[in-house]
Amino acid sequence: HQQLDHGGMMSDTAAQLAEITARLQKLEDEVAITRLIASYGPLVDGGCADEVGAIWTEDGVYDVDEFFYGSRADIVDMVNGEPHQKLIGNGSAHFLGPASVNVDGDDAVAVCYSVLIVRHKDRPLLVRAGTHHWEFVRTTEGWKCTR
Amino acid sequence: HQQLDHGGMMSDTAAQLAEITARLQKLEDEVAITRLIASYGPLVDGGCADEVGAIWTEDGVYDVDEFFYGSRADIVDMVNGEPHQKLIGNGSAHFLGPASVNVDGDDAVAVCYSVLIVRHKDRPLLVRAGTHHWEFVRTTEGWKCTR
Amino acid sequence: HQQLDHGGMMSDTAAQLAEITARLQKLEDEVAITRLIASYGPLVDGGCADEVGAIWTEDGVYDVDEFFYGSRADIVDMVNGEPHQKLIGNGSAHFLGPASVNVDGDDAVAVCYSVLIVRHKDRPLLVRAGTHHWEFVRTTEGWKCTR
Repeated sequence: HQQLDHGGMMSDTAAQLAEITARLQKLEDEVAITRLIASYGPLVDGGCADEVGAIWTEDGVYDVDEFFYGSRADIVDMVNGEPHQKLIGNGSAHFLGPASVNVDGDDAVAVCYSVLIVRHKDRPLLVRAGTHHWEFVRTTEGWKCTR
Repeated sequence: HQQLDHGGMMSDTAAQLAEITARLQKLEDEVAITRLIASYGPLVDGGCADEVGAIWTEDGVYDVDEFFYGSRADIVDMVNGEPHQKLIGNGSAHFLGPASVNVDGDDAVAVCYSVLIVRHKDRPLLVRAGTHHWEFVRTTEGWKCTR
Repeated sequence: HQQLDHGGMMSDTAAQLAEITARLQKLEDEVAITRLIASYGPLVDGGCADEVGAIWTEDGVYDVDEFFYGSRADIVDMVNGEPHQKLIGNGSAHFLGPASVNVDGDDAVAVCYSVLIVRHKDRPLLVRAGTHHWEFVRTTEGWKCTR
């Protein structure tokens, strides 16, 4: 049975609350980034250009093999553009795997795989497999991808 | 160094505990639904009909392209039925991707992809790719799918 | 308006803190194991032998169809070995799906799917699909796979 004076109790409780809040925040960050990455595929296949763009910061970069998009506006344009619209109009699944997320304060990195599946003669065809390296920053509007 | 009278400290601590508990509950809900969705594939490929059924409410609906199952009992029957048993007997993987989950109080929606892989001449063959829209409700037995 | 004496408030707050900490710990465990499993693919495809080995305990077992690795050292050797190096040199993705994790105190089990995708004539080819049963134990260095 622990005896604490009033002040001792306060500081003990406050310290525990602070520790719990920090642990909770870390989990929330990790889950939020996981959710953000999991939202990319359905949004990009659904042609939701603004929502896809909102995953990135205004000057966020999307560098994907032979393509390079240097801002949120460029990413929105990519989704609205004819090649992507043709791809999704035919039926596509940007199927991303579960991300391995590492949060460090207001920054985070994550790695995941993806496959691109398209409809070909009414059958699903695996046309691309890749690895994604994500960098995130905490903003006033939540976590956003910078690269 | 913050000075609080006894009552002030109590209400401050109580408010923090309430806020933490609410944030924790939200995370638990999101993780629980993620886990529920991740359990579908292994259970359905394992032929665990009752456990698959228990993902849904009693009157939960599973509407999948040309098939429609209007209750938990129908879903259990589907798993036990000859077409599904033949499918899994040959070797199948209902491979679902990570879900994007949004919890709103006692309701939640989630989106994920899946691919169906079957054994064909001793090789894995991708035979279907799809998007899943899930609706969940909190019940006394945990989160359950309604549709 | 609840009236509590000093001692009553203490125990009430302490009880709530203990309950919250236990719930938080359970979430942290589940997320940590999810993260560990999600790290396997990128590490093994990147040839990071020591980091792959560190997922297992020293005497952890990796039993995969016709292969059997009976210790962390054996798993590290597998990653560094010629067959695996040849596989990843050609371009491979060990794409694991989201794991269904169940934590029970200092033990945990998880189930997930994986597909192995390799580059074949510059196209991604699905060459294997499988189910993984994982067993974990809590160690002083975090969760580790025992089998």
